[in-house]
Amino acid sequence: MIGSAKLCSSTQDLRLPSPAMGIGFSAIPLQDVKVTSNFWMDRIKATREGALPAIRAEMQRTGRWNCLKLKWKTGDPNKPHQFRDSDVAKWLEGACYALTLEHEPNLARHVEELVDMIRTAQHDDGYINTYYTVVEPDKRFTNIAWSHELYCAGHLLEAGLAHYIYSGSHRLLGPLLKYVGYIGSVFGPEDWKKKGYPGHQELELALIRVYEVTKDKPLLDLATYFIEERGQCREDGHYFDVEAKARGEAARPGPGRGAPYSYHQADKPVREQKSVEGHSVRCMYWLTAVAGLARHSGDMGLRHAAVTLWKSTVHRKMYVTGGVGAMPDWEGFGPDFYLPNESGYLETCASIGLVLFAQQMKLSGVEEAANVLETALYNGVLVGMALDGKTFFYNNPLATIGRYCSRSTWFNVACCPANVARTISSVGQYIYGVNAQDSIAVFLWISSSTTFTLSDGDVVKFKQESHWPWAGNMQITLEGNKPLSNYMLLIYAPTGAKIYSVDSESNSEVTAHFKDGGSQIQVNAKTDALGKSVFRISTELKTRRIHPHILDLDNKGCVAIGRGALIYCAETIDNGHIGDLRGILLPDNAEFDAQTDEELFARFHLGFKPVVLRTHVKVVSVDADLRESTRVETLTLIPYFMWGNRGKSDLRVWLPRDTIQ
Amino acid sequence: MIGSAKLCSSTQDLRLPSPAMGIGFSAIPLQDVKVTSNFWMDRIKATREGALPAIRAEMQRTGRWNCLKLKWKTGDPNKPHQFRDSDVAKWLEGACYALTLEHEPNLARHVEELVDMIRTAQHDDGYINTYYTVVEPDKRFTNIAWSHELYCAGHLLEAGLAHYIYSGSHRLLGPLLKYVGYIGSVFGPEDWKKKGYPGHQELELALIRVYEVTKDKPLLDLATYFIEERGQCREDGHYFDVEAKARGEAARPGPGRGAPYSYHQADKPVREQKSVEGHSVRCMYWLTAVAGLARHSGDMGLRHAAVTLWKSTVHRKMYVTGGVGAMPDWEGFGPDFYLPNESGYLETCASIGLVLFAQQMKLSGVEEAANVLETALYNGVLVGMALDGKTFFYNNPLATIGRYCSRSTWFNVACCPANVARTISSVGQYIYGVNAQDSIAVFLWISSSTTFTLSDGDVVKFKQESHWPWAGNMQITLEGNKPLSNYMLLIYAPTGAKIYSVDSESNSEVTAHFKDGGSQIQVNAKTDALGKSVFRISTELKTRRIHPHILDLDNKGCVAIGRGALIYCAETIDNGHIGDLRGILLPDNAEFDAQTDEELFARFHLGFKPVVLRTHVKVVSVDADLRESTRVETLTLIPYFMWGNRGKSDLRVWLPRDTIQ
Repeated sequence: MIGSAKLCSSTQDLRLPSPAMGIGFSAIPLQDVKVTSNFWMDRIKATREGALPAIRAEMQRTGRWNCLKLKWKTGDPNKPHQFRDSDVAKWLEGACYALTLEHEPNLARHVEELVDMIRTAQHDDGYINTYYTVVEPDKRFTNIAWSHELYCAGHLLEAGLAHYIYSGSHRLLGPLLKYVGYIGSVFGPEDWKKKGYPGHQELELALIRVYEVTKDKPLLDLATYFIEERGQCREDGHYFDVEAKARGEAARPGPGRGAPYSYHQADKPVREQKSVEGHSVRCMYWLTAVAGLARHSGDMGLRHAAVTLWKSTVHRKMYVTGGVGAMPDWEGFGPDFYLPNESGYLETCASIGLVLFAQQMKLSGVEEAANVLETALYNGVLVGMALDGKTFFYNNPLATIGRYCSRSTWFNVACCPANVARTISSVGQYIYGVNAQDSIAVFLWISSSTTFTLSDGDVVKFKQESHWPWAGNMQITLEGNKPLSNYMLLIYAPTGAKIYSVDSESNSEVTAHFKDGGSQIQVNAKTDALGKSVFRISTELKTRRIHPHILDLDNKGCVAIGRGALIYCAETIDNGHIGDLRGILLPDNAEFDAQTDEELFARFHLGFKPVVLRTHVKVVSVDADLRESTRVETLTLIPYFMWGNRGKSDLRVWLPRDTIQ
Repeated sequence: MIGSAKLCSSTQDLRLPSPAMGIGFSAIPLQDVKVTSNFWMDRIKATREGALPAIRAEMQRTGRWNCLKLKWKTGDPNKPHQFRDSDVAKWLEGACYALTLEHEPNLARHVEELVDMIRTAQHDDGYINTYYTVVEPDKRFTNIAWSHELYCAGHLLEAGLAHYIYSGSHRLLGPLLKYVGYIGSVFGPEDWKKKGYPGHQELELALIRVYEVTKDKPLLDLATYFIEERGQCREDGHYFDVEAKARGEAARPGPGRGAPYSYHQADKPVREQKSVEGHSVRCMYWLTAVAGLARHSGDMGLRHAAVTLWKSTVHRKMYVTGGVGAMPDWEGFGPDFYLPNESGYLETCASIGLVLFAQQMKLSGVEEAANVLETALYNGVLVGMALDGKTFFYNNPLATIGRYCSRSTWFNVACCPANVARTISSVGQYIYGVNAQDSIAVFLWISSSTTFTLSDGDVVKFKQESHWPWAGNMQITLEGNKPLSNYMLLIYAPTGAKIYSVDSESNSEVTAHFKDGGSQIQVNAKTDALGKSVFRISTELKTRRIHPHILDLDNKGCVAIGRGALIYCAETIDNGHIGDLRGILLPDNAEFDAQTDEELFARFHLGFKPVVLRTHVKVVSVDADLRESTRVETLTLIPYFMWGNRGKSDLRVWLPRDTIQ
């Protein structure tokens, strides 16, 4: 199915789905992108040196690391739970990406140790699952609504793909494809197969990812089956009830107060769903697969469903940080425009899911998706990992009162830490796309370089250099192996900025077509005689006020402050003189002074110098007898993703305006 | 200890603690007050004919009714839980109050059936508890932090008192006092006794209530011990840890994310606590006892603590409906001024607890407490029971989106239904007080009459007639058994109204001293020659806007609408033409038309005609493409306590102002 070539040196297979496969762009894969951004190099380093070892240590402590050795016996501590394999798999995936970026012998050894374990854990028929091997070996695929069995399979498959990307070896991907083959023999449209689909979506998107590499049609077929079967009600009922009855249960157990089927996005078929509901991580992983399948199949009905649910997500249920999931009760979506700050759930994994979903939508030509991806990445995802990489947030409210929140080294449900680690390590894959006309699209302003091959076999080197997310301009260097007379590039402006000029900095020529006032430009470049073109793209990076939707009553009378992709927040630790952050009254004409900070985060020895914002605000405070007094104070705002690193402290993103009482 | 006279005919013992016993007022007890208000007669009838039979049926269905027969055996369904006795006790208490108001043979029979069960369930040493008799008989008083053992004892004791009030018999109160004696032999300051106190407060306030009747000092001493011991850290540690260690546990289990000790208000002694924290029902029951003890003991330190925690409750953590408890995670208090609408918990029992606490504060001379009690009673408590008495709300958010809320016939934790039933049936006790100078205080404007005896033996009959909560004036009739030359009355204006005139309507003379612009008046009445005085008190009942506290960001830019004691709300069922209630934009100059409604609630055949409010508002709505449009619509507001009776519907108390976007 796949060639044995080492893909990290010869990436031909991975990179470019043929134009016939779908619409829009193909992503340039992470192994073809060298990230040089100080900012991202720093985050990648914190992941490699902080997060991956810390997560591994916790997995060892809690019995996860060795769970696939299948040595657990009744009565032993740390009984494997049903999603334990996914924790291991996500760490492995993240580690493989880190190794793809930079070799590290110890890490490589740990990776191969896990690969050996997984290989050894595989049954003769291909099946791999810790829980259903050592705890309930007779219950395989009897409770896919709740068992996380197919979810674990999906993460293992993604780990197999990551291992293949890193190593070029089939040592892990091969066994996983065998497992997929087994799953395909159990589930499917044929009469004798089970009519089920993952209770926690994930395998669908993994199948599509591997399909993009292997072109192995059965992978796409199985993903298609899972996506189309979901939410169907057949003659014998809803599958989750069918399997519950088979277990001798009257009704499957429901998750708290959430509506049972919609919790899994399984209340109706995808094409009939109009609004994102239920568990937000499940939903985002699922829509990633739906959008990916629509992209590859060209099915316009499915595409329409993906766009409908995209709009529901980002226009009605997304927080300003790119977080989703207002409701702790079911870790998921609430009503439209209901975005409570303190009680919002906003799981880190849900923002990661939104990045994955946005990637598919972006590649399929939904223009706003590049900025949504950027917003979720720089805020909702990055906030999930501490600056040193060693502690994590599971949920990410936009405000706290009284320091209820602090970062943890681990969680009983441990999905987030390894998820954020794998996402940061693979940031390269979100930067570039190439379309059927060989045009490169620059979706994110992250200093980096890439090399890709045009349809005629010519090779182009591309480099972008900027100080984003902190400062405004980008220099692009394009080098063909021969002169290019009319090479087209699409450059998306970063979130909250408009491109206002494109200037050639060499003997090359560039002409730019501005779209939507500079939120996107199409550049035609003519290189110099050596095949080189250097040009500079300018934007103005201004601090901006973000107003809430008129139906978002939780934020009525408040504004959020953004600068580029970054959402800013007030943290008590910088604003002790203000006291209760709710007492801030921000004048509508307050001007923000953007200052490169040398001190607030000095102890973290970061590879970048953050920009903080300062302004003067009115502050109201209330004494013991409820008497109010106001004064003027300096307010310091820091990037949201940097909060919660310097001890317990309160947070506030939306700031009250000094307009009405 | 108590005489055998039938107290419902001879009430001398119950009514008037001697002036030396404390400051302020004594409540005129419910058996001495005849409620004639259409409004309250209707609610009492719904309780007697709707709630009490419905709760009894659910208790029979779930095994609670017969639990005190102690027939449960391992493996039987409906295993008794640790607070089962309290459900039975609260029903019994409510039934006894209902019987005090109006005899009903069936109800009386059920009451005696329960009394028999409780008597039979008593151990020789006095102990009574279903769970620790049939489920864990060897674990008595080993886990008072979590076992609800003393909580059940408290409710049984209150039931005993109610039965005594109703019947004059000791048949239930006697055995309960024996149980209290046993508890006093287990817990107390003596070396050989346990140093514990109730994990869920309740027994403290029950002891004080019974003490007010029996004057039996050991009851007050035991309450004092529990109150003063709570939150102490002794040489061997915190008692909850001491008993946990004795059970062989390293640490006692904690309630979710809440701080363990403060959850029970046991993190420090009462005199050191500055803010209400933790579980709100526990806290309110406890502070009822603290305030009651301070009233009886005259201990100014305890009084100061009660006032401090009263202010914390009502000035910083109380919702506009008299609901308390913002945080579902620990069913309790959140930070100051954090009053989220949709996610607020606001347990019905917590508002009941606030009524009990306010009653003590009101009697002890805290003037605002009468209005707080009234607000909690007419909104946070009454909303807990459906108009027909047959279904209930457990928690009471101030807004819903998408009809998540509906009333239930029962709850697994079934504290609220019987609690609201006993509260409504005993509303008479909250109306009047008498002080050491024989002055009567009218705390609530509820049409009713009472008879009481002055220090010199003279008897006074008092009657108030009004259409509150719907309309503005009150007529008072005072009749002495001989002419009164200078009888003083204190009349509190109802919530949201000021008294502007007092006019004699007969040959009597009245002079009135207005306090605080008419929020309270002191009336000196001189009766006519026959001992009679009739006079009329006038207030203007206007619809009013309530503005949020400046630190209450959840309601920034919104107003709540009140009329007298009643808070009004928009319910979707009356406003289908508006659609999403969040789209309301209420002009600051909108005038409300107060109309007696004949239709909206016609099918409930209520004994009163509610006043609804109508006005014109701007409405903004959002189409599928997020385009906003505005229009003008009529908005109907109904009393908050009446919402949720006509099918699933959305609710909104705080309405967005048409001021800023």
